[in-house]
Parts: sequence; C-alpha cells; structure tokens
Amino acid sequence: MQANETKLRVRYAETDQMGVVYYSNYLVWMEVGRVEYCRAAGFNYRDMEEEDGVLLAVVEAQCRYLHPARYDDEVIVSTQVRKAGQRGVQFGYEMRRAADGRLLATGETKHLFCGRDLKPTRLPAKRHAQFGL
Amino acid sequence: MQANETKLRVRYAETDQMGVVYYSNYLVWMEVGRVEYCRAAGFNYRDMEEEDGVLLAVVEAQCRYLHPARYDDEVIVSTQVRKAGQRGVQFGYEMRRAADGRLLATGETKHLFCGRDLKPTRLPAKRHAQFGL
Amino acid sequence: MQANETKLRVRYAETDQMGVVYYSNYLVWMEVGRVEYCRAAGFNYRDMEEEDGVLLAVVEAQCRYLHPARYDDEVIVSTQVRKAGQRGVQFGYEMRRAADGRLLATGETKHLFCGRDLKPTRLPAKRHAQFGL
Amino acid sequence: MQANETKLRVRYAETDQMGVVYYSNYLVWMEVGRVEYCRAAGFNYRDMEEEDGVLLAVVEAQCRYLHPARYDDEVIVSTQVRKAGQRGVQFGYEMRRAADGRLLATGETKHLFCGRDLKPTRLPAKRHAQFGL
Repeated sequence: MQANETKLRVRYAETDQMGVVYYSNYLVWMEVGRVEYCRAAGFNYRDMEEEDGVLLAVVEAQCRYLHPARYDDEVIVSTQVRKAGQRGVQFGYEMRRAADGRLLATGETKHLFCGRDLKPTRLPAKRHAQFGL
Repeated sequence: MQANETKLRVRYAETDQMGVVYYSNYLVWMEVGRVEYCRAAGFNYRDMEEEDGVLLAVVEAQCRYLHPARYDDEVIVSTQVRKAGQRGVQFGYEMRRAADGRLLATGETKHLFCGRDLKPTRLPAKRHAQFGL
Repeated sequence: MQANETKLRVRYAETDQMGVVYYSNYLVWMEVGRVEYCRAAGFNYRDMEEEDGVLLAVVEAQCRYLHPARYDDEVIVSTQVRKAGQRGVQFGYEMRRAADGRLLATGETKHLFCGRDLKPTRLPAKRHAQFGL
Repeated sequence: MQANETKLRVRYAETDQMGVVYYSNYLVWMEVGRVEYCRAAGFNYRDMEEEDGVLLAVVEAQCRYLHPARYDDEVIVSTQVRKAGQRGVQFGYEMRRAADGRLLATGETKHLFCGRDLKPTRLPAKRHAQFGL
C-alpha cells in the first residue's frame, strides 16, 4: 500500500514552555498515523486486538526533529509500512505542516506481533494481505 | 486516617506555552496523591486491582486553580478521604508549592468501586478498615 | 452563539490499563472544544494570544463521567459559552459517542482573561462580539 | 561526570489498555533523567533557560523497548552525557526496574543549544565545565 496521510491539529496540551510541541507527542502522532494507515488498508487496529488478540508491541522508536510544530498548526502525518513479516512490522513516518508542506519531523517504529500476554506471536493468515504479505 | 502528603517535581512535559503547568495535569497529580494515600493506609492500589479485581472508577472530578505551578517546582499533594462507603469513596486534595507552602490548587474526586467489567460492586470486607469504614 | 460541535477520535495514548480513557484526557478534549468554538465564532484563539496578548487562564474545571470512552471511539464535543463578561468566561461541554449519541461526560470550565504576565485583564473591545458581549 | 541515577514511580496515567506503559512516556522519563543529571552536575536546567536564555532543543530521540514497565513499578533512570560540544550535547539513558534491576529500555537524545528564538547558539563559557567541556 502507498503511504497513508492523516491530518491532525496541534493541541494546546501538546505544547511546552518552549512555545513548541513537546517532543514525546510526535510519537503519539505516529500512533495516530499507524491507526489510520490500518483503517485505509481495510481493517481496524482495534478489531485486531479485540477479535484476534493480536497486539502491535513497540520494540523501537526513533524521531528526527527538523522544525518545531506549534500550537494550532495542522499537521499531516504520512505513514507507510517499510518492512513486514509474520513476526513484526516496521513503519516510517513523515510529519509536515499542512499550511506550507514544511517537513517537521520524520520517524520510524518497529513492532512485534504479540498475544494478550505480550509474548511474541505470528500475524494470523487472514491479516497477511493487510500488511502487504 | 489523616491527610497523606506526597511530593513530586513538575516535569517539562507538564508545562504548556503559557509557561505554566497545563490544567489537566493536576488531575494526574491527584491520582499520584490517591495512590500514595493508599500506600500510607497500608495497601497497594495495584494489589486491590490485581488480587481483588476491584477498581476505583472516577465519576466526578473538580479542580480550582489558585496559583500556577511552574516547571521544576516541587509540589506537595495532600490527599484525604472525605467520605467513604461500601459503594464508593470521595477524596479531597490540596496542592502546595514546597518552597513556600503557597496553595496552588484544590480538588476533589468521587469514585465508585467497580469490577473488571466496570460494573459497580462493593468494597471487599477486608478493605473496609483501609478506607476507614 | 449556539453550541459548537467538533469531533475527535480516541487515541491509544489516551487509554489506561482499565481499558478506557484516562480521566484527565477529558479536560484536553474540552480544550479542543473551546478552540473549535472560537474558530466557529470567527476568530483563532491563537491570534488572541499572539496579537492581543490575551490568554484564557483556567480558574476552575469540573467533569462528570457518565460512561467510559474507549479506544478508537469517535467522540463529539459540544461546547457553549455559559456566561461571559469583560473579565472572564465560562464554558459548558457535552461529550457524546458519535456512533450512538450516548452521553459520555459533561463538564464546565471557568476562565479569566489574563495578560502574558498571567495577571487579570479585560477582554479587548474588538473581541466582545465574539464572546457574545 | 558519571551516569546519574534518578528514581520515579509509574503513574496510572502512563499506562495504556495493553496494561503497560505507553511508549511515548519513556521520552518523558528521559527528560526527567536529563534534568536530574543537570542538578547532580551542579546547576538547574531551569536557571539555564531563565538566566542565560539557553534552551536544549531536541533534534533526535531514540528508544529501544526491552521489557514493559507496569503501573506502580519503581523505575531507575540512569543518564549520562555521551558527547558534548559548544553547539550541542548527546545523552544516553538506561531505564531499569528498581525491584530487580531488569533493563526495561535504553535510549538516546541529541540536542542543540538554542536561544529563546529557537535559533542555534553556543553554550556560554560558564556552563562548559557543567557539560564536561
């Protein structure tokens, strides 16, 4: 699947006293990007958790901060699957300011498919196509 | 039991672009106060959830903001049980700046005892004394 | 002005281990509601801060939790001005689950207009109409 | 300077519906680690911002998640300066469960010294020794 784009607006709660978005919030936006990527790929991440008992546990996250996002900015989160296998998946992200397309941050996260007990598992066959396997 | 005091330090993450602590974080501090109140009363809130399957669901929360807390301030959260019954409990809070005792905020929360299904339940008898019943 | 409605989707970050939205996040949603109320009333809250140097400092917040919001729920935040004067404003909120209209929470916040020094000030005359004065 | 250790307790607010700490919160803990590192090195990060007008802007952050932290766990954040220069500084972190020393996560952040306008600047000479320059 192509990269999926979703838009969000910076909340006052997400700023800090430096006058810009606090750095951990970009990881929350990546999560929003992942969820919307799944929806665009034809399934609810919530259903995968509830029906299949399969969770996406994060094993690594990285973010490069290029330009600060500010309160009330509209931000476009572009999300794609970089790699996927039966045991895990890797997402890449670009976060841009909607007003002028300026690149604010890039990131990536690596995940393992886990059961409710947080032990590694394999992606059920019915989900393979949804992750491009 | 008397009011229990616990101390925390304001995190950068908790500030906003106004240069002071964002207002929802005081509710997080009240939660920290509740947990430490329980510990001082002789039990872990975690054990109540894990062993008894009893959760404290919030039904109402209120906060009055008197003076802004700032980054790196030490804050003393003073917590007490205002009312308790077999079905629920009500906590009151005072949040003061440690440096000079200045009152920053007061609050209160009302809770119902619930099972893991979030349906109302009664406090197990073995916990009564811990809530002053 | 009538109540303004805005929609948001519950983020994974907003849930807690009880499996529902953590209670302080409803105050963040109220802030989202306020900002969108202002936009619908014809002005950006950001501009009021940046151009006029007028901030909305919270002096009281209250929330009643009626039914838990869950991950991935769409929530409609309905916001209205309950009272407004030259020195402050009071907002009321209703938060409903979009899928079935179920009322999840109600809340209210009281604010004072302040300068950048967080000292009380009066609302500039050019903003009066925007707050219904 | 040696690595500095600081202890914190996992808040309910920091968990998610997976029953473990939500992944962005480890970045908040790294910030707590940085601040306490500075205090141990003999200065308040707050003073650097207020008196010198020098801020530590984040340009990159990374976290590897090895074992999930859970509600009410005590976590030891061990922080050290990996590299420092007049233009920036790089911190490394280890987060361990206090009860048994189990390594939960490792991370690193890269920062540039900036002025209040968020433009790059150099670390004032009086601070050099504090960053080991």
